[in-house]
Amino acid sequence: MEIKEAVDLFKKKNSLMAAYNHAMGVMYYDIETAAPKNAAHGFGETMAALSEVTYKLSVNEENFELLDFLTAHSDELDEITRREVEEAQKSLKLLRSIPIDEFVEYQRIQSEASSVWHEAKVKSDYAMFEPHLRKLVDYTRRFAKYASPDTDPYDYWLNEFEEGFTQDVLDDYFGKIKAALVPLIHRVMEKPQADDSFLHKHYPAARQRELSAYLMSVMGINRDDCSIGETEHPFTTGFNKHDVRITTHYYEDALASSMYSVIHEGGHATYEMNNSDELLGSPLFGGASCGMHESQSRFYENIIGRSRAFIDLVFPKIQEMFPEQLDGVTAEQFYKAVNRAEPSLVRTEADELTYSLHVLIRYEIEKKLLRGELDTKDLPAEWNRLYKEYLGVDVPCDKEGCLQDSHWSGGSFGYFPSYSLGSAYGAQILAHMKKELDVDSLVRNGELNKVTDWLREHIHKYGMIKKPKELLQICCGEDFDPKYYIEYLTDKFSKLYEL
Amino acid sequence: MEIKEAVDLFKKKNSLMAAYNHAMGVMYYDIETAAPKNAAHGFGETMAALSEVTYKLSVNEENFELLDFLTAHSDELDEITRREVEEAQKSLKLLRSIPIDEFVEYQRIQSEASSVWHEAKVKSDYAMFEPHLRKLVDYTRRFAKYASPDTDPYDYWLNEFEEGFTQDVLDDYFGKIKAALVPLIHRVMEKPQADDSFLHKHYPAARQRELSAYLMSVMGINRDDCSIGETEHPFTTGFNKHDVRITTHYYEDALASSMYSVIHEGGHATYEMNNSDELLGSPLFGGASCGMHESQSRFYENIIGRSRAFIDLVFPKIQEMFPEQLDGVTAEQFYKAVNRAEPSLVRTEADELTYSLHVLIRYEIEKKLLRGELDTKDLPAEWNRLYKEYLGVDVPCDKEGCLQDSHWSGGSFGYFPSYSLGSAYGAQILAHMKKELDVDSLVRNGELNKVTDWLREHIHKYGMIKKPKELLQICCGEDFDPKYYIEYLTDKFSKLYEL
Repeated sequence: MEIKEAVDLFKKKNSLMAAYNHAMGVMYYDIETAAPKNAAHGFGETMAALSEVTYKLSVNEENFELLDFLTAHSDELDEITRREVEEAQKSLKLLRSIPIDEFVEYQRIQSEASSVWHEAKVKSDYAMFEPHLRKLVDYTRRFAKYASPDTDPYDYWLNEFEEGFTQDVLDDYFGKIKAALVPLIHRVMEKPQADDSFLHKHYPAARQRELSAYLMSVMGINRDDCSIGETEHPFTTGFNKHDVRITTHYYEDALASSMYSVIHEGGHATYEMNNSDELLGSPLFGGASCGMHESQSRFYENIIGRSRAFIDLVFPKIQEMFPEQLDGVTAEQFYKAVNRAEPSLVRTEADELTYSLHVLIRYEIEKKLLRGELDTKDLPAEWNRLYKEYLGVDVPCDKEGCLQDSHWSGGSFGYFPSYSLGSAYGAQILAHMKKELDVDSLVRNGELNKVTDWLREHIHKYGMIKKPKELLQICCGEDFDPKYYIEYLTDKFSKLYEL
Repeated sequence: MEIKEAVDLFKKKNSLMAAYNHAMGVMYYDIETAAPKNAAHGFGETMAALSEVTYKLSVNEENFELLDFLTAHSDELDEITRREVEEAQKSLKLLRSIPIDEFVEYQRIQSEASSVWHEAKVKSDYAMFEPHLRKLVDYTRRFAKYASPDTDPYDYWLNEFEEGFTQDVLDDYFGKIKAALVPLIHRVMEKPQADDSFLHKHYPAARQRELSAYLMSVMGINRDDCSIGETEHPFTTGFNKHDVRITTHYYEDALASSMYSVIHEGGHATYEMNNSDELLGSPLFGGASCGMHESQSRFYENIIGRSRAFIDLVFPKIQEMFPEQLDGVTAEQFYKAVNRAEPSLVRTEADELTYSLHVLIRYEIEKKLLRGELDTKDLPAEWNRLYKEYLGVDVPCDKEGCLQDSHWSGGSFGYFPSYSLGSAYGAQILAHMKKELDVDSLVRNGELNKVTDWLREHIHKYGMIKKPKELLQICCGEDFDPKYYIEYLTDKFSKLYEL
């Protein structure tokens, strides 16, 4: 085969695959936002049928040969095509190594586990879920061994989610985080808390919708490229740089909840909308990794959105929109209220300071599970012990404990660390951005576009062309270093709580 | 091949095709309701890719052989499978007979015509659209000849949209309609009009959304099977009986607009939700024909929704929801206001009495176009002449004249008559329903479910298993007869206008 012919064939397959992924992505968005309740069954059937088609399109000898041929000639490919081939190989590596009957069986087990987990969570009944989790852990370890026999299974999965971040890096990272944050949180807890009761007055959803529009405009989000919908759990999904969707959920007694979910998801959306035009239709559209994606959402949410400068920028407008609820409240009080930190039970509701300890606990647990050092039967006890030790809280029930997250029920082990890494990336990126930009002044003056321009040029435009470690080099001229994150949190919360 | 094997293969193909159609349907719904504006380009690319896949799935020798085999053994098939095969053959008949290069060229022309029409309508510039329409007419005639050389082209297309309704039937039908309605409308026009100014006070969209929910509940629509969205032009789309979507558009200065669009689309939705369970996943899901579908929407909208009994049922609630706007208005006044009839320019805004004359004009024009008796260049003059003659109105510009509808720009000739036939079916069905049910009393008492039960048992449950003419036999024990429609309109409007 000629290179050109092979590349054309490869690109053609990518286009078709993109069409399927687009359609399935829209169906997923639709079922979460618009579909009536009873649509679920038909949705499941169609998704299963289309998944089978896409599976067959990519998992077949002809495609393997094509990819192997292109891989062998990767020197002759342009950068984007080379990365596309590399990502295709990566996504197929596991499928190529697993016996098909085990793969099918695993799909069944995963789907069952997911459905049992939903029920178990409602009933707070871990025993019900445990046998399913056990099977998933077993398969997860086994599959890693198929794909990479000489690699520690947890390292295999960590590397899948965040390339280059295996246990040696993460042990060091989390060790430093724990050493710094556990005592910092203790000191914070000894201080009086700011009053945030005004955030919990009645905030009508209709008005909050207007606030969302305002925040998106402050972020410079082009609404012709990005819509906002409403779902129980906020999320972002993008089909190409001109079609990105964010969602939020309005709680009428919690102003900050939707406000910060819009800024968070708006950060994810900004990343995708700022991909370069050459990634239109490419499988490299999106973010470099889960961690890098999360770094952008949390950058906007916390580093920008919860900064004093941002509050100075937006508070007058927010007060104008909610004059009764925020009567007499100052920007300083609002700033302190949206930055209240205290140990809690649920990761997704955790504040900026304590968040990474929630992730650390999950890291330690899944590490032990995959290394065979923790039996799934003993998981709740270990979970509760760690929450007590690191965060000082007593877990009242598994619903608010080890059953709270869906990740494990979906077979994702090794995903959690990327949430924390995202925050750490963000702090490191900020430190270097500040050498070039006066970030606080720009934000205070409403010139967020200049911050976003910097991120677009250093991160967003690359989509998946560059890997997380390469992007950190581009942004910072150095490798990943957790010290910036620790310094950032220590500095911010020492000032906030006058330590 | 064994019959069983062939049927299994056929059903498997149907399932896969259903998955594609489901995905494309959701994408279409999404682009109309939720997608950001700039999503259009990516949407077009994905739809083109998936359309090509589905085209290849059905238009191939292997599939033709399968269908021919099953057709040859149709006696051995159960009723549903037999009808599925028949419909598949019908939908492929044209594709099998058209040279592939002409089909591809036609797709291009159609897509171009559609896009030019949008612009031409905005600019009210028929000359811009005319060359495209000319090509479409030419292809439409040619394709009919390929598919059925011995049939008059317009008869071919009419029969495609509404089986059994060719020019001889429709000439008779429209002749009677014209003879009865033109003088009736003249008499109505001599009478004073009821005041409907209260319908054009300010009706906030938020409140109108609550009215939609109320109307859907009055209609007995299970919201777990049917959602409501908002689009510029209301429509209904259904993926299976448990996943139907209606849309509406709220005009804050026109209460009746959204109100009757919800009832109209709710009628379409009710039809699909009432398909029998055995049609889940079958291509026979939906309605027997365009005309039969329209008969149900217009039955709920006009025959039920604009009846005195229905106004008695819902007006107290509507007045409660809009106490200021409807202060002092009586149910009788409301009834007269929503039934105001007068000649107008735009079909989609026409009242119940004049509606079929709008359709008649289109019927006469497309008949002449396809018979070569009218040159596309002369279309506006003919259009304007007919509007003056039948409806007594002067057409000020082509935007409100012959460019108003999208149908011809999409290559649909022969579709319009089904709109009018739907109304006529409804009146005939009503006459026979009344032999078994006291429709007015049921409606007045809020027992619409009994009316819907009757329609489900006589029409809805069959989906596409039965054809329009068969359904009329089931409902009425007789063939189509326009006299009921004429009697219904004459009676209703004679009373309303005290003729």
